[in-house]
Amino acid sequence: MFELLAQDQSRGYRTRRGRLTTAHGMIETPAFIPIGTQASVKAVSPRELRELSAQMILANTYHLFVRPGIDLVRHFGGLHKFMNWNGPILTDSGGYQIFSLAKLRKITEEGAQFQNHIDGTAAFISPEIAMEIQAALGSDIAMVLDECQPWPCEYDYAARSAEMTTRWARRCKEWKTANAQCPTPEVFASKQPNAERPTEEAVEANASPARTAPPANFKNASGKGATKEDQQLLFGVVQGATFDDVRQASAQAIVDLEFDGYAIGGVSVGEPEEEMMQAVEASEPFLPNDKPRYAMGLGTPPQLLEMIARGMDLFDCVLPTRLARNGTAFTSIGTLNLKNAEFAMDKRPIEENCACPGCREFARGYIRHLIKAEEILGLRLVTLHNLHFYLDLMRQARDAIEDARFDSFRKQFLGNYKTRNGPVEKSTSTAVSAGTLIFRNFRPGSHV
Amino acid sequence: MFELLAQDQSRGYRTRRGRLTTAHGMIETPAFIPIGTQASVKAVSPRELRELSAQMILANTYHLFVRPGIDLVRHFGGLHKFMNWNGPILTDSGGYQIFSLAKLRKITEEGAQFQNHIDGTAAFISPEIAMEIQAALGSDIAMVLDECQPWPCEYDYAARSAEMTTRWARRCKEWKTANAQCPTPEVFASKQPNAERPTEEAVEANASPARTAPPANFKNASGKGATKEDQQLLFGVVQGATFDDVRQASAQAIVDLEFDGYAIGGVSVGEPEEEMMQAVEASEPFLPNDKPRYAMGLGTPPQLLEMIARGMDLFDCVLPTRLARNGTAFTSIGTLNLKNAEFAMDKRPIEENCACPGCREFARGYIRHLIKAEEILGLRLVTLHNLHFYLDLMRQARDAIEDARFDSFRKQFLGNYKTRNGPVEKSTSTAVSAGTLIFRNFRPGSHV
Repeated sequence: MFELLAQDQSRGYRTRRGRLTTAHGMIETPAFIPIGTQASVKAVSPRELRELSAQMILANTYHLFVRPGIDLVRHFGGLHKFMNWNGPILTDSGGYQIFSLAKLRKITEEGAQFQNHIDGTAAFISPEIAMEIQAALGSDIAMVLDECQPWPCEYDYAARSAEMTTRWARRCKEWKTANAQCPTPEVFASKQPNAERPTEEAVEANASPARTAPPANFKNASGKGATKEDQQLLFGVVQGATFDDVRQASAQAIVDLEFDGYAIGGVSVGEPEEEMMQAVEASEPFLPNDKPRYAMGLGTPPQLLEMIARGMDLFDCVLPTRLARNGTAFTSIGTLNLKNAEFAMDKRPIEENCACPGCREFARGYIRHLIKAEEILGLRLVTLHNLHFYLDLMRQARDAIEDARFDSFRKQFLGNYKTRNGPVEKSTSTAVSAGTLIFRNFRPGSHV
Repeated sequence: MFELLAQDQSRGYRTRRGRLTTAHGMIETPAFIPIGTQASVKAVSPRELRELSAQMILANTYHLFVRPGIDLVRHFGGLHKFMNWNGPILTDSGGYQIFSLAKLRKITEEGAQFQNHIDGTAAFISPEIAMEIQAALGSDIAMVLDECQPWPCEYDYAARSAEMTTRWARRCKEWKTANAQCPTPEVFASKQPNAERPTEEAVEANASPARTAPPANFKNASGKGATKEDQQLLFGVVQGATFDDVRQASAQAIVDLEFDGYAIGGVSVGEPEEEMMQAVEASEPFLPNDKPRYAMGLGTPPQLLEMIARGMDLFDCVLPTRLARNGTAFTSIGTLNLKNAEFAMDKRPIEENCACPGCREFARGYIRHLIKAEEILGLRLVTLHNLHFYLDLMRQARDAIEDARFDSFRKQFLGNYKTRNGPVEKSTSTAVSAGTLIFRNFRPGSHV
């Protein structure tokens, strides 16, 4: 399911070039995963995602659970058919949003009780329910339910929480083992209140002719779109906050459970970038070489290269889509705030020689006008550009690893990319000035 | 410039099938013109407009004057290049928005003084300045400055105002005659405050390399995109509120000035639909057969057919794009509010057998979810569907006129299309029940 095609481990790098096979297609790694929170990558159509060569998208279980509800997605034959995306989908467990968005949450060994942030409806998610929901969504990669530890975090809490995450991971694995050969259980539907359950009348009224058949390139042999349980991959999550020994123990325990892939969770939650790097460095040596590694919720373009350098394969981040909606574009020399007056008469594209639809056809001055006038086309164009930037950066990284020139690729990128006021600046500038050294916290030879 | 290809005048109809040639291409009439208020058809890209077979778009002079400012559009080589739309563009004169949006407006014989609705900057537009602005925008069709009369309106005011509109039309024609062979005058730039004039630094900073060359299919031989003054068509506007004799006098006077086309203005300003129809009926007989006729700001799908029946060729309306953003879709049986719960589990497309991108790929239930979750893709899909609906209705009307079966086409459409609570309902239901009669106010034989 995961094939390691090349590694560039010169100068202490841990870079990997791989290929992950899922029920809906292959993902060449390192890969960036655009985020489609509510079954839509914001402002972008599935067709545009295909044209951008997006390989996989992420959908948020919590958001879909709250609205439109899992029964409704199941009614449409799963997430792939619902949103008409035929490529691979990764779903998170819902845990992160329960901890960051939901109200009145209470976490026990059994699971998480919470009220959703939309209408306050009470709900409960256990490791088993998180698995049921993701099975109903029919994603290609499911994540175990974990507790995302905050930053800062006390050592004792981090240790106890990571141990519970391991126990939850075991329950997810057991659920999967028990259900892999069975049809999706329907128990969930009767157990939970649904935020927006359609009326019976609505169901009856629409029992009539189905809409047009799915496109011929639907990967699933059943034609139903959803990934069957026995094809759905399950990734474990390493926690442990910023404590090396907790990270190491968590990684070892999760790996012992044998998942299809491993994620580093609890990073990019507000900690200094050096601690983020350290958390990955502490966990990575314990992850098996023949499984994909997923750094959750990351990051800026320089951070992605640092994570690739540290042996990570998969990344998801809201930055390219979220910043686009505020008029901020990623370029090889750093971000541009297109609202700035300096771009008003600028006839150049956002980035010279960029192949994205925004840069091929429109000038900065026009896009700035659209953003200032709050025209939807403006944020559409910047979103497409930013996603292209992230996806193309990963393509360049893959090529560099294959050609064993990751070091020069990384240095050239970081040398051009200017960051502002952020923790990235310190880290990358240190790295660049260090010449042969890679970055501050990276200790060649310490990873065995 | 306008070729009348066919007429179906059975049963008192005045329908026309024509072809209008502009500097940026031909428009087959009857035609619907999507509205691109601020140099963007809301939520839609130029590429999508081409795929929808949109023939021409409308841009609002007032809005562009206020933001980003005419100098800026001129800097980019005109509106076509600025927004990367290579097809025909019609610009209005700005008059309608001065009367409906601007603050503290004062209308004199000389022109209109007003404060814009964005930042209150004072400005003045005369007939000549309206022409200068539209020349700078480089549209294919410019409109004379007119006063759009309100509803209701006193007879004396309507008569005096229509006479002033005629005098303004003469000044526009004179400006065009004087400037048709000259380069765009630059006097305007120094006369007016500009809402968002870029700094000199910005201009200098961007004097560097131009962006990628315009696509090869740019129609303008100069490669600059903008329509030259001697190629820009100028349409006169008939006013006269709801008074037949004022309408007739206005039409006669405007036609005597010899424009490239004629618009009926001051309709769809709140009057009952019957009065709208009557205003068109009163004006139409005075319009020459060999020039296009443009019913400004109209209308619902049934209204468009009624206007075609009354000899109109061109239409613009915000309904398909504006209602889409609220989740309302046009279909052959009337509008659907996709927010309604009845659509939650509906697997059908918005309209069966519709060829639009929304209907080819997505179910009502998914689009409803997107609209409810305020996802941009939702309003994008409904906008594309609604524009397709309007554009396709015009295509069907053209075919029906060519085949001399407009009557059966119209009756079939109105028989299926259900309207709610609107004035259209009364009018169309009367028409349908009347059988051989076309509609209440249409008097065959009275138009000579």
